[in-house]
Order: sequence, then structure tokens, then C-alpha cells
Amino acid sequence: MEELIRISPGFGGFDFPYDKAEVVFLGIPLDVTSSYRAGYRFAPAKIREASANLETYLPEFGLDVFETLNITDMGDVVPTPTDMESTGERIKKFVSRIVKDGKFPILLGGEHTLTYFSIQAFDDLFLIHLDAHRDLRDEYLGDRVCHATVARRVLDLLEADRLIQVGIRSCSKEEAEYAKTKKIKSFSSAELQASIARIVSEVKQTVASHPVYLTIDLDVLDPAFAPAVATPEPGGLTVSELFTFIRELRDLNLVGCDIVEFVPPYDNGNTAFVAAKTAYHVLGVLSLKKATT
Amino acid sequence: MEELIRISPGFGGFDFPYDKAEVVFLGIPLDVTSSYRAGYRFAPAKIREASANLETYLPEFGLDVFETLNITDMGDVVPTPTDMESTGERIKKFVSRIVKDGKFPILLGGEHTLTYFSIQAFDDLFLIHLDAHRDLRDEYLGDRVCHATVARRVLDLLEADRLIQVGIRSCSKEEAEYAKTKKIKSFSSAELQASIARIVSEVKQTVASHPVYLTIDLDVLDPAFAPAVATPEPGGLTVSELFTFIRELRDLNLVGCDIVEFVPPYDNGNTAFVAAKTAYHVLGVLSLKKATT
Amino acid sequence: MEELIRISPGFGGFDFPYDKAEVVFLGIPLDVTSSYRAGYRFAPAKIREASANLETYLPEFGLDVFETLNITDMGDVVPTPTDMESTGERIKKFVSRIVKDGKFPILLGGEHTLTYFSIQAFDDLFLIHLDAHRDLRDEYLGDRVCHATVARRVLDLLEADRLIQVGIRSCSKEEAEYAKTKKIKSFSSAELQASIARIVSEVKQTVASHPVYLTIDLDVLDPAFAPAVATPEPGGLTVSELFTFIRELRDLNLVGCDIVEFVPPYDNGNTAFVAAKTAYHVLGVLSLKKATT
Amino acid sequence: MEELIRISPGFGGFDFPYDKAEVVFLGIPLDVTSSYRAGYRFAPAKIREASANLETYLPEFGLDVFETLNITDMGDVVPTPTDMESTGERIKKFVSRIVKDGKFPILLGGEHTLTYFSIQAFDDLFLIHLDAHRDLRDEYLGDRVCHATVARRVLDLLEADRLIQVGIRSCSKEEAEYAKTKKIKSFSSAELQASIARIVSEVKQTVASHPVYLTIDLDVLDPAFAPAVATPEPGGLTVSELFTFIRELRDLNLVGCDIVEFVPPYDNGNTAFVAAKTAYHVLGVLSLKKATT
Amino acid sequence: MEELIRISPGFGGFDFPYDKAEVVFLGIPLDVTSSYRAGYRFAPAKIREASANLETYLPEFGLDVFETLNITDMGDVVPTPTDMESTGERIKKFVSRIVKDGKFPILLGGEHTLTYFSIQAFDDLFLIHLDAHRDLRDEYLGDRVCHATVARRVLDLLEADRLIQVGIRSCSKEEAEYAKTKKIKSFSSAELQASIARIVSEVKQTVASHPVYLTIDLDVLDPAFAPAVATPEPGGLTVSELFTFIRELRDLNLVGCDIVEFVPPYDNGNTAFVAAKTAYHVLGVLSLKKATT
Amino acid sequence: MEELIRISPGFGGFDFPYDKAEVVFLGIPLDVTSSYRAGYRFAPAKIREASANLETYLPEFGLDVFETLNITDMGDVVPTPTDMESTGERIKKFVSRIVKDGKFPILLGGEHTLTYFSIQAFDDLFLIHLDAHRDLRDEYLGDRVCHATVARRVLDLLEADRLIQVGIRSCSKEEAEYAKTKKIKSFSSAELQASIARIVSEVKQTVASHPVYLTIDLDVLDPAFAPAVATPEPGGLTVSELFTFIRELRDLNLVGCDIVEFVPPYDNGNTAFVAAKTAYHVLGVLSLKKATT
Repeated sequence: MEELIRISPGFGGFDFPYDKAEVVFLGIPLDVTSSYRAGYRFAPAKIREASANLETYLPEFGLDVFETLNITDMGDVVPTPTDMESTGERIKKFVSRIVKDGKFPILLGGEHTLTYFSIQAFDDLFLIHLDAHRDLRDEYLGDRVCHATVARRVLDLLEADRLIQVGIRSCSKEEAEYAKTKKIKSFSSAELQASIARIVSEVKQTVASHPVYLTIDLDVLDPAFAPAVATPEPGGLTVSELFTFIRELRDLNLVGCDIVEFVPPYDNGNTAFVAAKTAYHVLGVLSLKKATT
Repeated sequence: MEELIRISPGFGGFDFPYDKAEVVFLGIPLDVTSSYRAGYRFAPAKIREASANLETYLPEFGLDVFETLNITDMGDVVPTPTDMESTGERIKKFVSRIVKDGKFPILLGGEHTLTYFSIQAFDDLFLIHLDAHRDLRDEYLGDRVCHATVARRVLDLLEADRLIQVGIRSCSKEEAEYAKTKKIKSFSSAELQASIARIVSEVKQTVASHPVYLTIDLDVLDPAFAPAVATPEPGGLTVSELFTFIRELRDLNLVGCDIVEFVPPYDNGNTAFVAAKTAYHVLGVLSLKKATT
Repeated sequence: MEELIRISPGFGGFDFPYDKAEVVFLGIPLDVTSSYRAGYRFAPAKIREASANLETYLPEFGLDVFETLNITDMGDVVPTPTDMESTGERIKKFVSRIVKDGKFPILLGGEHTLTYFSIQAFDDLFLIHLDAHRDLRDEYLGDRVCHATVARRVLDLLEADRLIQVGIRSCSKEEAEYAKTKKIKSFSSAELQASIARIVSEVKQTVASHPVYLTIDLDVLDPAFAPAVATPEPGGLTVSELFTFIRELRDLNLVGCDIVEFVPPYDNGNTAFVAAKTAYHVLGVLSLKKATT
Repeated sequence: MEELIRISPGFGGFDFPYDKAEVVFLGIPLDVTSSYRAGYRFAPAKIREASANLETYLPEFGLDVFETLNITDMGDVVPTPTDMESTGERIKKFVSRIVKDGKFPILLGGEHTLTYFSIQAFDDLFLIHLDAHRDLRDEYLGDRVCHATVARRVLDLLEADRLIQVGIRSCSKEEAEYAKTKKIKSFSSAELQASIARIVSEVKQTVASHPVYLTIDLDVLDPAFAPAVATPEPGGLTVSELFTFIRELRDLNLVGCDIVEFVPPYDNGNTAFVAAKTAYHVLGVLSLKKATT
Repeated sequence: MEELIRISPGFGGFDFPYDKAEVVFLGIPLDVTSSYRAGYRFAPAKIREASANLETYLPEFGLDVFETLNITDMGDVVPTPTDMESTGERIKKFVSRIVKDGKFPILLGGEHTLTYFSIQAFDDLFLIHLDAHRDLRDEYLGDRVCHATVARRVLDLLEADRLIQVGIRSCSKEEAEYAKTKKIKSFSSAELQASIARIVSEVKQTVASHPVYLTIDLDVLDPAFAPAVATPEPGGLTVSELFTFIRELRDLNLVGCDIVEFVPPYDNGNTAFVAAKTAYHVLGVLSLKKATT
Repeated sequence: MEELIRISPGFGGFDFPYDKAEVVFLGIPLDVTSSYRAGYRFAPAKIREASANLETYLPEFGLDVFETLNITDMGDVVPTPTDMESTGERIKKFVSRIVKDGKFPILLGGEHTLTYFSIQAFDDLFLIHLDAHRDLRDEYLGDRVCHATVARRVLDLLEADRLIQVGIRSCSKEEAEYAKTKKIKSFSSAELQASIARIVSEVKQTVASHPVYLTIDLDVLDPAFAPAVATPEPGGLTVSELFTFIRELRDLNLVGCDIVEFVPPYDNGNTAFVAAKTAYHVLGVLSLKKATT
């Protein structure tokens, strides 16, 4: 059985050799544990398709990311649906290879569970977790490693003060109490909307110069902007707010990123474009960082 | 012919005995007089389905509404499509029973016409009417009691100074002039967006400690947020603005509420979730009120 | 209030003066009593739109119906949703006018209920009723005149031996027993598929030279061919079988026709085209009859 | 964690006590191993919903199945997505209970994989397998127990001469050769269409009076009739052909049945109705059998 | 071949004689050069349909536009798909006639290319170009006159200082550099959102009392508000922001307008309503101007 | 400007070198002259996607086409939307290259117009034209070379006795008379359904051993089976009938083929699968021919 399916063309509609790449896209069509909508498996393909219908030049950054950065696309990790453990090992293996080769991975999910495996490829990590939900349950429908528990599982790997939750507007009472007990730094959707600058400032103080991994659950956006998410939660960010927040992270020591929870069968096209343009914004930030190094 | 169909599970995915309930959901699949889109009949079922996929804990309120309140769901009133009068009597009968039993009714519509029947169960009422449209026509397509005349019919029951219209952004010239003549207190969508606090303050002064019934036509929201409404009107509120307004009503003497004008055949899922989460926000307000009593 | 809305262009994309017309289309956007899907109101408009995207020449008949016949379109009767009685009077009035003027009416529904009012414009009538369902209930959800009782109400007007049901594949036990008791001549979908010639022959013997009204509930077709019907019933006719049956009626004394139960919000386009082409087939039969007179 | 979620109302829109039931519906929202479309999880709910919008009287059988048989609905088995083994044990446990209690189980899937677990509740079984695909792969995407291997796994439990495949029109070369080597009795879609009677006759000779389990993969139908299947394969049966085949099985010793591979997110409503009416046909056969015992 | 198809009813659901009209709607179902989504051809019809389901009274303006202005609808220009040159001549011919007759044209597109032809009917023009994209490419897929080059072609006709681009959030590097070199006045989406008043003030200073043509590419809106555009670009204006901007143009010397890039096959209904209400806002501005003249 | 975009993976999900290929797929996303629905441009991509989700082994033929034949995919010819002439030259150029290299071309359309250009690459040709429509108009909406005139334009290149139309069920009176005058051999949909063997026999007699090009307009199928065609025409073939007809052409001297008129924006997935499996059937026929040579 193959573990990786090579995709051509890759993100942005281009092919570029892996060796000289600085940024590597990796699709993770993981689609097993959703408790509501399914169909994550088509997400990486749909994001790539949209990415080729967007400009590679970004006016907000004043640069063309494909000129500034060497970008490649490794293709998709093949999940074994009934075996989350070996699937997780496979995700970890490929992300580790990218990290070891000194490149920046951008994972295109796929269910959020993948973040638990992806971050195992890094050391000394802080996690910025953009999401409508806390994902802090300890177990869900008999699963301990799933989309609803991913942040809890992350805390098996990281100290609680290394997790920063942004955009939260839904959780169970247990999750709220757990977050309080563990003193997890978190900002609600409304707090972010009130002052992006203040939140970014607090985030920067917290993570300082540590390596930062950014996980973007697209349901942090209001469903009006990203309808095709697995568990829609009315009352979220606008696309402009999300993009502004991402741009403000340019001073951090970003080392990896994922964009997750997109379920294409429920899309009208908008979510695919939002996911792709979110990835372009991350590339814009990486371009600026490179330019200023 | 049965007049009520019991539904299980009820709102939130739970069943709870009627006797001890403090809040009672009642579905009104009324679907007769729409002049444009039809399909209201599926609304109560779709709202209940979405309600079971949302958390019962509300971070904005810091409480779980099913812990704070005893909530039940009576099921759906069965309309006789060709006989609005007897259908109306049936709605009035069940709402009256809930009110007489000292409980708070939340009606899940269904076309807006139901409000005319529902409010007849209350005395000394003020009506807060969230809507894109004034609904002040005297007749529409030969009907005097229909979704386009509901507020006008309400004025057959209430003094004009007891009606407060919020979120208005569409009406005919006759409706505009009638509202002016009758000095109906109303606030446009733009006015609400400019300052929710100011509007809430004026509303509070107007209704004082009188009983207040809240009718929420989902088209008060911009169609980007609630696409599946019977008569979409671009330029409305965001979900966050609606929720903020609802939370600010916590000091009023709320006695009943309805959420209307959702037509599921036109939905991408978002409107169902918005309607359900709107109901949760009303439950949050009721929870706070109970806690502070 | 207007009782008729003139539509331009009419069926086939043409306008033609009423006075010289031999065939008159009349839209009936009646949309009140459906117990499952709603949205009939858009049917006449969608059928007209499709009719303009089909050829007016029919190879099976070897003629262009707009050359053979003078065809006009009167527009749509305006229903009053809450008043079936006055709506029914209005339908009867316009159909009567057409019949009195010596013209052939083709009604584009709308819910099946309209047939009960339409046939009141004729004398000495036999009714050929193409349908998946018997529609022989005596009451449904409190309504005695509705889409599920229409054939039963017809029997208040016609002797039972003047009703011929074709394509039946669904009914309640009561309807089955009622049909048996009343000796209603009926043919199942499977019987028609086994031998159209035999069924047509029996139909001809029954109706002889009496005036015949043809009511076509589109759910007589399998939902694969006509998905947008109010109550889909798997296992029906193909379009070719329906068209063959209609062509075989060319020797009958046809005096009127309706095509009903199309609910556009559930359509992928196919049902609109099927409904329009069904009307063209009726026009083809009328053309042949005129040519041979 | 709960293993079973009780559903109300059950299939047909009714609730009936388990103890006196002769037929038991059991939903299996298993949704893990599909290699193409996902969303099986919503299938049992959508089939039940459609079942309440179909008549319980069947003209082809001349009886009302809810009068002839005591029918109940146990609800849905809860799968653990990442643990097929324990999920399978759970399915087996509930089917075994039904069988042990002398009742006839009808499983509403869910992915086809469930058949492998369900049949373990029976002894001395023959399996009639209606499907477009052979499902005889030994492994697929790293999974040995999945929707594409289910018939192969069944052969780990049954002798090859106890499997009869009907409606086949797609397989890999390996599957074709394996079927040939193992002398699996199978009939293509075209063969069935050419003569249902001949195929039924051969089936009867093969299974004689042995217990027979009927598994119906809805993709045995042409996608025109059942569009919402996981892997559509053009060129299949019509609904009428499928229903005729099922009716012809009335002389067999049927002991259990499942209806699988429906993925509601891709449905226009038709597949839900087809699945529900297929179940009614199985109930019709059971009713006839009971009447003649 | 006909060059113009008359449409009845026209915009707003009315017919009015051309001679006395002050404002003339003209549909341009041009649908040839889109590089991504197609289906513009249905746009004029869908906008007219939505226009009849909106009020003609505008609360923001306090007037009924059909009372204030004489408005007619000329129907649709017929494009010859394979001959852009003659199609363009036809567009120019009809717009010129309207302008020559002293009337104000509002074109309902159709692909943006039409603007290049439409503005040739005017002298001494300034162009306010609302769009997510610059459309400043010199060639695209072999075409020099197409939706992606329309603003560049406009600069073959106008001096660069007569083009004002508003709402821009996407372009290629070449377009960015060309705009810089040519010193094209332009405002990004974010700049407009930060201060509509400031942008409007700059626009007014630039155009002074010169004739102004307003071209509104609906993708200037965020796709959440207008999903059915040819090339969706996340991060745009809200409907309220667009309407506010339009209202602020009331002091300019507006002489013509078009609303373009709507592709109905991708719509959920919202885009049609947004396009129609945008046209009403332009009518509102014209009404105010007339009232104050 | 590039004239050809290479696609990977190609039809069937594979890549294979051009040099050794016997069969070459070529996508033609031509999408300009449709008079009703547009969106052909996405067809080649959607057919390839579906082709990878179907088996390459064909039970009806007893072989795996990718084992029997060397198959490659050249990618897509890039059309210039506003220049049909140069686009046509480009199509002709690539098809000619394939033919000159001794390979069999299968074109994936795209609008039917492409056939006019494609067949110019062959000599001494007979054309078998599967279609619901005659496409014999001389001009349509000002275009002489378009989807509605393609068969007429073909007769500018071939003698009328070299065109065989199969499946016809729609045409204008002029087209019917032209076909009669020119004595074009044609078979209606109903004739084909009555006896495929007879039609095939007549076809064989007509074409004898001459080179035959097969053009398959997917609307020859009933819209129930292929809903996403540009101009749906109820009353066509089933998929099984089409496939049977294709298989019966195995004795002809086939030299080229196209599959056209698929418009993906209107698809539910079925049309893509039907188009892909139609191509597999052509490959099956070519495999048999190779095996017997």
C-alpha cells in the first residue's frame, strides 16, 4: 500500500522540486471521527483547485508569494480509515521529514485530529489554536483521539500554558471548567473582534521567540463565510478579521501550520476559496519574514 | 384529527416532563400564506435537529441552560391548511395553556402569521418585533391575516405604542406612512448597527416592567447569515449583532417568544443552526433572569 | 385584488390573441394543502420557461403544433391561500369561460386539488386520472378538499364509473377498499408497463365518445424521471411510456387537460422539461385530431 | 458510552413494544471506510423519515404490513469510528439478540461492511448479495474489513457456494478471477434484466430451504433511480426490476436482511424513498409468508 | 437575426413606455470569456425576477422610485457568442440610443467586458470601477477584450486619471505595477471599510462635475453576501457598506451604470436579490438627484 | 499563449508516454455557443475524475482496458473564447497529429461544435451521430458554426449519405425537411429502443469497411440518466441501451470518437460517471478489435 499520493499540479497550480523548497504543502484527507458532517477527504483537492483560481500576488503584502518563496506540494498522505494509530504515525513521519529538511509544512486537512500527530514533529512548541470550539473533551463517542478531543490530546504533549485558543465561542461545561482549571489562555470570538491588536499583543508576550505552530479550524469563521465546515457555529469571525489576525503574526517564530475541518460536499465554492486564500496569507507572512531576515 | 403531534426528542435532543417545565417549546409548522418561498412546514423539525448539534453550555452566559432551566418540548401544533381561523384557535389554545401553567413558551415557526394568534394568550403585552419588513399591510393577495399583515393585525389587539419594530429595512410607502401616522416606535437595521446600546436603552424605557413578547423574524439577519428565509432582504444584521441585542434584553419582563420565517428547502444548513442558537440565546437570557431572581 | 395575472411570453415563448385561439393555457399556482413538499406556486412559470427551450415541431407527430393550432396563454389565476372556496370559484370561472368560448383548456398546476374545480366547467365528463396515488381519501389533516382527497371529491360530481385511474401504485387500505366497493376502473403502473395497448383499448371502450378530461399527476412517472413532485413514489412509468399512452388517446373526445403536482424547488431542471414536453404531447394529439376532422 | 440510541418514532412513523415484535429494524450508521463518498451516518434517519411519508398498505401485496406484522424499531447502534472491531462486536451483539428472540432483523445501513458482522448472528446461512460490485477484494487502502472487501470477508465465514451475487456489473480483474476460481454463483445486471424468473429459479434451487440473508446494496440500482450511493455505477436495475426480484423471493426461508450504501448528503430525496420502499417490499414478502404459514 | 429581445414585465415587474422614460434598463446576457465559472446569460432574467420581489419604496431614501422616476426596461441585447466585435457594436448602439434620447441607462450584465462597449456611448467620462480585481491585464487566454482585461481596454479610451478603482483586493504583479506606473487612483476593500466618507470625498474631488459612469462588479462584495460571481474573492465588502457607498455618490454627475459578473447557476437566491437591490439603490440616488434639481 | 495544458493524472488516473500509446484522450473544454446552459469547460476534468473512480476491468468484455491497450492522455486544448476559427484550427491540429501518429483519439468535450473541427483530421469518413437533436440548423443566434448547427456544418465536409443520426427525438420543422430532402439516414430514440440489433445491422450495411467516427452527444440518453446536458430532452435512451449499441459497433472500422455536451455545474455526479463509463465502453470495443486483429 502506498503511503503518499503525489498530486500534480500542486498548490497554486505549480510543480516545484522538493529539494529546493522552503515551504511544503501536504494534504491530509483524514475523514473518520466527525460526529456530524463527513466528507473531509475531498478537502485537499478542492483547496488546491481553488488555489489555482486565485492570484499568487498579494496586494496586502505587495509581493508574489511564488516569487518570494520556493513552494512545493508533496501530495496527500493516505489514511487507513480503521487504524488511526498507523495513520497518525504516517502523518508524523512525513511532517517530521519536512521539518528535518528545514522546510515549513502547511497541512491541508482533513479532520482536526491530524494536528495531534503533526505537532509531534516539533520541539519546544507553542500552539495557536484558531477555532470556534475548545476541542478539550477527554473522550467522544468512545474515541480518545478525535476531532472533538484534539486540543485535550495536545495537552498530553504540551504544557497547558503553551496552548492559546483564539475565536472560541462554544464548549461544554466540562471543557469550560477544564480550561479554567488548567488556566488555558483563550480569547473568544467577540474579544478578538473587539480588538485584534490587543489579542495579538498578548499572544506575542506569551510565545515570545518560541517555535509556534498555527492550527486554523475554518469554523473559527462565521458559517456565512465558510459554510462547509463539519460543525457550523453561528457568530464567528469575518474573513477580513481572520486575515488581519494572520498578518499580525508576522513577528512570531512560525514553524508550521495546518488548515482543517473543511467538508467539501457542503460547499458552495466559498469555503474552498477561503481555505486557499488563508493559505496564501500564511505564505504572505512567511514571505515577509524571509524578506526581513 | 389530532391537534398536536408529540415529538421526541425535543429541542436540545432531550425529553423532559411537561409538569415541572419552566420553558416549553412548541412547533408551529404553519405554511400557507407566503407570497414567495414556501416550505416553512419543515422548520420546527430542522431547528430541533440543529439544536442537538449545538452545545447546551453557553460561554457568553457561563452556564448550561439545561442545568439552569427545566425545559420541555410539547411537539407541533397541526395546522389545517385551508382553515386559518381554526388553525389560529388551536395555536392560541396551546399557548394559553402554557401561559396559564406559568411557563414560558418559545414557538418555532412557521410563517410569521402565528404571532397574531400566539400573543392573544397574554395580557397587557408589549411586542418587540425583530424583522426586515414592517408587515403592516392591511391586506395581501386577498388575505387579511397573513405573513405580510401580521403586525397590522397585531395592532387590532394592541395599542400602537406597544409595538416596537427593530431591524426594519423594507416596507411599502403605505406601510411607512401608516407607521408614521400611528407613531410606531421603530429602529432600522442601520440604526441598530450604529448603537445597540442606545436602541436597547430606548426599548427599556418604552416597555418598562410590562410583559414583553419577542418575535424574531429571521430575515432581520442579512441573508448571508440566514439564507433560508421566505423573503430575503439584503443589508441586515450579523448573527453577532442579533445575539448581542437579545442578551441586552435580560432586564425586561419577557413572557414569550417566537422564532419564525425559516424555510428549510432553501437552506445550506446555516439557517437551521442560526435559528437553534437564537433559541439558546433566549434560554440564556431566561437562565440569567432566573439566577438573579 | 386581481384574479388573473397576464403572463408574457406565454407557453412556448409566444403571445397570441385569445379570440382566435383554439387551445388556452392557464396557470394555477395553487400551493396550500400539500402534506409533504411545498412550492407548487413556481410550477406554471417554470413549465413555461422550459417550454420555450423545446422545439415546437414534434417528430413523433410530424408537425409543428404552433402551425397546426392557434395557441394562447391566459396567464395565472391568483389563489387566495386561506380561502380554498373562493379560489376554487375563480378557477372554475376561468375554465368555464374557456370552455364556453369553445376552446380547449390546458391547466398548468399547482396542486392536484385544482382538478376538482376545473372539471366543474364541463358536462357529461369522463375523467382519466394518471397518478401514482388514488387520492381517494375522504379527509386529510382536517381538509376535505385537498391534494389527497381530490379523486374522492371528484366522485361527489361524477358517477364512479366515469373515473379511470391509471398508473396507480400507492394507496391506503381504506382507499383500496373504497375503490373496490365503488368498482372504480383502475390500472396499476405495472399493468400499464406490461401492455399500453391493452389498457388504452379498455379505456376507449369505457369512455366511448363521451367528453374526456385528462388529469396528469406527474408522480405517475418514476421519480428518476420527474424528481420534483410533492410525494415521490418509486416504481413508476418512464417518460416514453407516458408519452406513448398520451399519443394513444388521439381517438378520444378530449375536452380538457391538466398537468399537476410539480414542485420546482426540488427540481434539477428535468421535471420542468418533462412537464413542458408532456404539454407538447397533448398539443400533438390535439393537432392530429384537428387534422383528421 | 451508550451502545444503542433509541429512536422515536421508528420505521413507518410508529412505536411498538419490542417484546411482541416479529420484525425489528436496527439502524447502523457506520461511516468509516468508504473510498469515495462519505455520509452514510445520516442514512438510517433519512430512511425512517421517508418511510413515514409512504403508505403502509402495499397494493402489489394487497395488505397493510403494519396490520399483518408486529414491527418495531430498536434504534441505532453507535459505532466507534476508529475501532471497527468493537463496533463490529456491537453490531453482532444486537443482531444476535434479535435472532435469539425469534425475530426478523432488518438493518438500515450504513456502509456495506456491517453485513460481515450481521451474518455472524446466524447459522447455516446462504447470502443473496444484490450489488453492482463484487466486493471481493482481499484488502483495500490497508483495510481488510471494509466496504470493498465485505464479500471476501464473508467467505471467511461461509463456503463459496453459499454466496449468490446478483446485479453485478463492476469488478477488478482479480475479483473476476477469484469469483471464477471459487465458482461463485453470480448474475449480472443484464442477465437479471433479461429474465428475472430464470434467475430467481436458479437462486431457489441453490438455496433450497436453507436460511437466507438478503443484503441489498442500493447501487445495484441504476444511479438514475438511486443517485445517493457511495460508488455510483451506471447501467443498473430499475426500481421496478428490484421490487419484482424481491417479491419473487417469497418462497425462500428468509431470516434477515440489510439495506446499505446510501449516502444522504448526495440525495435529491429519491434514494431515501427508494430505500424505504425497498424495506416495505421486504415487509410485504414477510407478510405473505406469515399469511401462508 | 433579432438584435434585441423585448422582456415583459421589465425591472420591478412593470412595463412603461420608452418615450417618457427617464431611466432605461438594458439586459446584456454576454457570457463568453469567463475563465472560471460561466452562466452569466441567465443574470438579467434573474435580477428582474428578484426585483419584483422587493419593495419599490426605499426607507433609506424615503421615497418610492417608481413614483419619483419614469422607469422602463428595453429588454436584452442578443449577443453573438463567437463574434465579440459585432456584439460590442450592438451594445454600443443601444446604449448610445438611450444616451442620445437623454435617458439614464442601467445595464444588467453579463460579463464585465460589456463596460468597454457601453462607455463608448459617452463623452468626457470618468469611470468609478467597483471590483475585487483590477482587470488590468493586457491579454488573457488569447483574448484582448475580455472580463479580465476590461479596465485595461477602458484605458485605450480614457486617460488613466479618469479611472477610479474601489474595493480592489486582488491583482497580478503586472497589474499592480501597471496601476502604479499609470498612477491609477485606487482604494482597497480594507481602505473603504476603514472610512467610506474619506474615500467618497477623494472620489468627489477627482471627478468634480464631470460625467461619471459607475460599473459595479458584484465580486466587490464578499462572497458571503454575493456567492454567485464568476471569480469569488474572499475578504470583500458587506452589502451595507456597498449601499452606503452608492448613496454617498448622490452629488456626482452620474450618467450611466452597470451591474455585472453575476452567474446565476451558482446562486442560492441571495446574489439575485443583492443585484436587484443594488439597482434600486442606484434608482434611489437618481430619485434624490431629480428631487433636488 | 499555450495551446495545450498537460493534465496529470490522465483518464483512468494514469500517466503513460505518448509515443507508445494506441489510444489518446484529448480534452476540449470548448464553452462558447450554448444557447441554454453553459459550463462545458469543466467537463474534461470531471470525466477524468470519475474515470479514476471506476474499474478499468470491464465484465461485459472480460478484460482490463489498461492491460489490453496503451492509453495516454494529452491534456486539454486551450480555446480562445472569442475566436472560434483559431480555436477550431487548434483542435484540428492536435487531432491530426494523433491520427497521423497512427493513434485513436477520444475527445472529451465540451460543446458539440468541436466535432466539426475534429473530423477534418480524417479522410473518407462516415459519421455516426448519437444525439437527441439533429443539429442541422444552418445558423443559430447569428452563428453558423455552433452546437446547434454542427451536423449541418459537417455536411459541408461530408456527403449526406455519410451521416447517420441515431437517437433523434427533437428537431425543428426545417431540420426535419432538410433531413428528408438530403435523405439522411436516421433512427429515432424509439426505433433504437425497439430493436438495437436491426439499427446496428443497417448501420453496418451503410458504413461497410469505411473509417467511422463516433460522436456521442450525451443528451441521447434520457435526462434521468444524464441530467447535466446543455439541452435536456425527455424521452431518451437508458444507459444500458447506449452501452449495448456501442458494444455492437465492434466490427466497424472505428477511427475516432468524441463524447460531448456535458455541463458539470448541473450535475449530481451521475453524468460524469456515465460519460466516463461510456469512454470505457469505447475502450472495451477497441480492446476487442485489437484482440481479434
